[in-house]
Amino acid sequence: MKRSELTEKILDIKREKEWKWSYICEQIGGMSPVLVTGALLGQHKLTKPQAAAAAKLFGLSKTEQAMLNEVPMRGAGAVMPPTDPLIYRFYELVLINGPAWKVLIEEEFGDGIMSAIDFDMEMVRLPDPKGDRVKISMSGKFLPFKYYGAKGNEQALGYKEE
Amino acid sequence: MKRSELTEKILDIKREKEWKWSYICEQIGGMSPVLVTGALLGQHKLTKPQAAAAAKLFGLSKTEQAMLNEVPMRGAGAVMPPTDPLIYRFYELVLINGPAWKVLIEEEFGDGIMSAIDFDMEMVRLPDPKGDRVKISMSGKFLPFKYYGAKGNEQALGYKEE
Amino acid sequence: MKRSELTEKILDIKREKEWKWSYICEQIGGMSPVLVTGALLGQHKLTKPQAAAAAKLFGLSKTEQAMLNEVPMRGAGAVMPPTDPLIYRFYELVLINGPAWKVLIEEEFGDGIMSAIDFDMEMVRLPDPKGDRVKISMSGKFLPFKYYGAKGNEQALGYKEE
Amino acid sequence: MKRSELTEKILDIKREKEWKWSYICEQIGGMSPVLVTGALLGQHKLTKPQAAAAAKLFGLSKTEQAMLNEVPMRGAGAVMPPTDPLIYRFYELVLINGPAWKVLIEEEFGDGIMSAIDFDMEMVRLPDPKGDRVKISMSGKFLPFKYYGAKGNEQALGYKEE
Amino acid sequence: MKRSELTEKILDIKREKEWKWSYICEQIGGMSPVLVTGALLGQHKLTKPQAAAAAKLFGLSKTEQAMLNEVPMRGAGAVMPPTDPLIYRFYELVLINGPAWKVLIEEEFGDGIMSAIDFDMEMVRLPDPKGDRVKISMSGKFLPFKYYGAKGNEQALGYKEE
Amino acid sequence: MKRSELTEKILDIKREKEWKWSYICEQIGGMSPVLVTGALLGQHKLTKPQAAAAAKLFGLSKTEQAMLNEVPMRGAGAVMPPTDPLIYRFYELVLINGPAWKVLIEEEFGDGIMSAIDFDMEMVRLPDPKGDRVKISMSGKFLPFKYYGAKGNEQALGYKEE
Amino acid sequence: MKRSELTEKILDIKREKEWKWSYICEQIGGMSPVLVTGALLGQHKLTKPQAAAAAKLFGLSKTEQAMLNEVPMRGAGAVMPPTDPLIYRFYELVLINGPAWKVLIEEEFGDGIMSAIDFDMEMVRLPDPKGDRVKISMSGKFLPFKYYGAKGNEQALGYKEE
Amino acid sequence: MKRSELTEKILDIKREKEWKWSYICEQIGGMSPVLVTGALLGQHKLTKPQAAAAAKLFGLSKTEQAMLNEVPMRGAGAVMPPTDPLIYRFYELVLINGPAWKVLIEEEFGDGIMSAIDFDMEMVRLPDPKGDRVKISMSGKFLPFKYYGAKGNEQALGYKEE
Amino acid sequence: MKRSELTEKILDIKREKEWKWSYICEQIGGMSPVLVTGALLGQHKLTKPQAAAAAKLFGLSKTEQAMLNEVPMRGAGAVMPPTDPLIYRFYELVLINGPAWKVLIEEEFGDGIMSAIDFDMEMVRLPDPKGDRVKISMSGKFLPFKYYGAKGNEQALGYKEE
Amino acid sequence: MKRSELTEKILDIKREKEWKWSYICEQIGGMSPVLVTGALLGQHKLTKPQAAAAAKLFGLSKTEQAMLNEVPMRGAGAVMPPTDPLIYRFYELVLINGPAWKVLIEEEFGDGIMSAIDFDMEMVRLPDPKGDRVKISMSGKFLPFKYYGAKGNEQALGYKEE
Repeated sequence: MKRSELTEKILDIKREKEWKWSYICEQIGGMSPVLVTGALLGQHKLTKPQAAAAAKLFGLSKTEQAMLNEVPMRGAGAVMPPTDPLIYRFYELVLINGPAWKVLIEEEFGDGIMSAIDFDMEMVRLPDPKGDRVKISMSGKFLPFKYYGAKGNEQALGYKEE
Repeated sequence: MKRSELTEKILDIKREKEWKWSYICEQIGGMSPVLVTGALLGQHKLTKPQAAAAAKLFGLSKTEQAMLNEVPMRGAGAVMPPTDPLIYRFYELVLINGPAWKVLIEEEFGDGIMSAIDFDMEMVRLPDPKGDRVKISMSGKFLPFKYYGAKGNEQALGYKEE
Repeated sequence: MKRSELTEKILDIKREKEWKWSYICEQIGGMSPVLVTGALLGQHKLTKPQAAAAAKLFGLSKTEQAMLNEVPMRGAGAVMPPTDPLIYRFYELVLINGPAWKVLIEEEFGDGIMSAIDFDMEMVRLPDPKGDRVKISMSGKFLPFKYYGAKGNEQALGYKEE
Repeated sequence: MKRSELTEKILDIKREKEWKWSYICEQIGGMSPVLVTGALLGQHKLTKPQAAAAAKLFGLSKTEQAMLNEVPMRGAGAVMPPTDPLIYRFYELVLINGPAWKVLIEEEFGDGIMSAIDFDMEMVRLPDPKGDRVKISMSGKFLPFKYYGAKGNEQALGYKEE
Repeated sequence: MKRSELTEKILDIKREKEWKWSYICEQIGGMSPVLVTGALLGQHKLTKPQAAAAAKLFGLSKTEQAMLNEVPMRGAGAVMPPTDPLIYRFYELVLINGPAWKVLIEEEFGDGIMSAIDFDMEMVRLPDPKGDRVKISMSGKFLPFKYYGAKGNEQALGYKEE
Repeated sequence: MKRSELTEKILDIKREKEWKWSYICEQIGGMSPVLVTGALLGQHKLTKPQAAAAAKLFGLSKTEQAMLNEVPMRGAGAVMPPTDPLIYRFYELVLINGPAWKVLIEEEFGDGIMSAIDFDMEMVRLPDPKGDRVKISMSGKFLPFKYYGAKGNEQALGYKEE
Repeated sequence: MKRSELTEKILDIKREKEWKWSYICEQIGGMSPVLVTGALLGQHKLTKPQAAAAAKLFGLSKTEQAMLNEVPMRGAGAVMPPTDPLIYRFYELVLINGPAWKVLIEEEFGDGIMSAIDFDMEMVRLPDPKGDRVKISMSGKFLPFKYYGAKGNEQALGYKEE
Repeated sequence: MKRSELTEKILDIKREKEWKWSYICEQIGGMSPVLVTGALLGQHKLTKPQAAAAAKLFGLSKTEQAMLNEVPMRGAGAVMPPTDPLIYRFYELVLINGPAWKVLIEEEFGDGIMSAIDFDMEMVRLPDPKGDRVKISMSGKFLPFKYYGAKGNEQALGYKEE
Repeated sequence: MKRSELTEKILDIKREKEWKWSYICEQIGGMSPVLVTGALLGQHKLTKPQAAAAAKLFGLSKTEQAMLNEVPMRGAGAVMPPTDPLIYRFYELVLINGPAWKVLIEEEFGDGIMSAIDFDMEMVRLPDPKGDRVKISMSGKFLPFKYYGAKGNEQALGYKEE
Repeated sequence: MKRSELTEKILDIKREKEWKWSYICEQIGGMSPVLVTGALLGQHKLTKPQAAAAAKLFGLSKTEQAMLNEVPMRGAGAVMPPTDPLIYRFYELVLINGPAWKVLIEEEFGDGIMSAIDFDMEMVRLPDPKGDRVKISMSGKFLPFKYYGAKGNEQALGYKEE
């Protein structure tokens, strides 16, 4: 069984039961909805208790439950550049603002990256009389690029080093 | 003259003068640093007063000043997928979380997109004993997908329509 | 079940019943034919009443009906550049006229885009003795690019700003 | 000399003189602004009188004037998918609506295409209290696909043929 | 049912019956063999009488017969650059001779294209003592690029215009 | 010096002198205009006498003359899929008709290809009251695929072999 | 049935029977092992007697036997650049040595190509104390590029022409 | 000035002076040779003291020295898949062993990645009678994928979580 | 049966049995875990005794066992650039450090490559108070590029040659 | 200075002096003509004595001579798939015969590759009354894939292992 087939099965049950993602995430619990939803769409793993809860909710077999507890081949099935307008807009933000993000983060933090692994994200609705807004807050740990020395002694030069 | 040549010239002056982006953005003013920096990197336009301030700061010609006031061919020079690790991590966030963002925004807002045009963004440093974090907050106007009727009368079905 | 399988099923029924798209769109109603047809081809959602009408017309299951009410992964299945000559000609128009459209819209409206989301379109036949013509009228809301200030106050600089 | 170098030269003069495209198109005359602008951007030819007018306006050499009268390698310099948001939105329209346009045009006209060569286009601003709109009208001659017979006699089966 | 599955079915029957394409085209009639063969391979439509003849010949269902009367998504399944040597040689001709064809056609006819839609083609064997030759004759209508005027009046500038 | 720079130089002289390709091909002589034009555009070699004639006509240096007598890296500078509509139409013919050409040539000639090397081509204008046509005749030697035996003895199985 | 499915079936039988390719090629005979193996992998046709031998050996149906006698869509299923190291090494040889092969063959033979159609190949093991070697000998007919004259008279200029 | 031009200049001086990388890295000091060499090839930054040492060694201007202290657009100029055999072999290792590395690291460490930023690497020569070997040792910090909870409380589930 | 289907079957059994890779590799034995795991994921062959052990462990048929003893089409199914973050980080190492590895290996060893075929690899966990590290040690035989002479006599110039 | 600029310079001198590659290779000596020519085209290094001979022949500077002694970024400037017909035919051989070569080499030698590094090649003209042939003989060392054991002990399983 492929992970994509399990995703398809879960979506079919969701349709039939007329469940919302908010309801499903509540039943499975333990992590933010973006992560739980992402896991059910085949992009993350669920922990064992979560996988058990999901298996109970969707009536999954033992093998399917085990599959939800595996780290999937992330990004599988994604099309880049995204053809879907909603996802494309995020891609466009990276395409156009990436260079400015780079120089500003490096000026503030030194050489390094914002982790996409030690990373939190929240999405809320901002009511606005001119049209509600989607607000996304992300915070990722800054990982300084490590410069290892000729003698093997590490130098964490990322932070404000000369 | 190409916009990329103007960008290169501006960067050479910045190096020579040992200016920081924060100093440059302060001198030009009027918009958030991400936008001013992006404009100097060739991804946005500056308004006329800003372009004048930039021309004074960098000692630009009249033609170069006019060019800063033009909307550039956005995204020119970008490489996708990004080869630079700092920018790639953002690309990866879209690649892996895009599908979850899509279904959750659609469940909350209906059919539509988060605008990448009517869009604000802030980047701050979050002090953290386990390592400082980069916090990025973005808010974009939700744009409901419009369903125009057979008789030409608009139906804004994006918001919680049936 | 994948959306593409539902599309295939609908097309098979259309063939068997010898229905035209004009007849189908009339039965489902509520939106312009381009949108209803696009939804049945897997590129848009139908509203709940429309999905119910479609389900009745094509004899669909409850799950299939629910799927028609979901926003699909738009653009799925499209091949770019298009290999089909009819679709390619539109692609070619963008390829060749895109730069001119860009500078003329920006000169008239300022920095921004024509929305592809708040967007209406009509297609009619223009009788012409030298050969009938296809006339396509599109109108999209102009979305000015927003320049957010250093102090967070929005500046809608898109419209004729300096 | 490359056509792209001539385009660059023309844009530099336009910046220096602070001319608008509307002014330039008026001076050159003879065709719609989309075509004249496109020609100056290197995507179309100007007729001889137009090229002469352009040469006078921009102070071009005889060779440069001759180059404006040549059909350029159309599409040269374009990036697909477009990275610029304004142009991308048109690309997205083709990506998502292409299949629906195809089946509806074929149902109305038979097998064939809308010409991208015998093609007219107009762009106007539609004032709208909710935000002005860009209105684009295009009309292209329908070209029926010709089915040549086994005996060489042409059959124009495009129009409503069986 | 997908068009490619119908093509596969037709090819299986052809194999089983040991028919040649010349026999099949004769039975279906009405168009040149290149078009009839192309339609059975999923690249063109057959007219209703032809589709009926094909359905009788291959023992197809009513839905399959209707599918043969539909304009397919042309180019579907093609791989470009072609991997098959026979097809690649034609691709190579375009790759290498395209620029010369362009300037010579434009010098003779003015700005425009040779239609790929109003287009006839014949293929014959030329006996030759040094090895027989494949002779392909194609004739396509020249379509002059139309230059629409500022006042909306068409100007067919393609033919030998200044 | 690159071949593309020589091509550019030749085109500049052609513009300045207001020569037509027909005039140039006449002066150089010795081969069909499609080949001579293609050679000057950097896709073929000229023979030594032709290169001498071209050098005299265009006032080229000895090194430039020698370069015209070299086989260039064919296809250099070509963009595939072609963005220019005139060239794209030929590409489209291969894309859509390639599979039919393949099976019909193989049925008539056996396994093999039509040579793109031992290949002749003529292009003429067909006057037609409904609009003149471009007629292209190509004849290429059929090259049977050779099946070499286990014992090294060649078997030319291309021609009507079993 | 697709050719790739027939290949898969043949490979399954080979596994079950524990046959070697050398055994299979011997049973089918008539051509070099590279060609017979390639045909069974879906890249060449077998002659009728060979197809009959293969059908007997593998217990194939009449339709499957007919399919082996068809010229397949060569190159189908190949991934380029090859991901498999053994095949990639050959690709790398072309990538890196291609330009040198080109100029040396052209210096020796004139303008033209080494045929990939009238082409023989042998592969043997060269015992070597430092490690056995794979020896591949290929000989392809040189095909001079034909330069057809303005008057239609062929000139085979490939051989040592001026 | 572009970073690639600075790289080119540095390489020209290295050639002229007949320096080895080992000598250059010794002069600049402070980090492992792989990092110093990478920085001079335009893929990393040098610290301020290192940039000063490099400027002295190569006789660079103040602007060039400042450029060496900037984080470059990493990966710029790289071709993927690599065409150079030495680099390609590493690419191939990832291509073929990636899936096994993934499941074994995840089994040992839980969900997460080996950092490419907090990363050390050493390359030594292993004398071997059958031919010396290149030994590369890499050690990267394991970064557990963080699962943030519904209530915002972090859960570092990467390490052996259930 | 395709190799990817066998992989899928093996993974399903692993899930059901709740086996770890370490357990499986121990049962099959004979090679390093990276190779055994890679073989079960379809990237390497198992030797006959290993294939027999695997067949016994997973309850495979004789044909499936034979398939495990075949060299697969390596790299099949891999996506490059990798979308999975864990695998991407290795790809990024090659992308950014490739040029430095190249010049340093060539300075130390002469012209040649590190073999990806005669290649060993070990992966261990390095306990570290700041976070455990993944340590990967690879050693590949250096293969000097061979320069064969004009007279056919080999010259192994890779090693420190002039 | 880039290697490609040096190549261009060398080619210009060759044109001016009217030298043949055979003459140049003779002057430089020491390796087969394919290698010397490839080095001058920027794909290999020359040894120090060869570089000195080349520098004398072409009148190169000390820096240019040093550059010829460097291993270049192999494959730089190559276009794949090749657009030049002569090179494409070799590419096609790999594309179509690659799978057969793979299984036959593996059957004969076991798991491994034919080295593209320890590799010899000769090209000769075979006179043939039906048209001369190009004969290419290549011999590459077979490199068995090494299977390292769980205990680090190497097992060369490539040769006829079970």
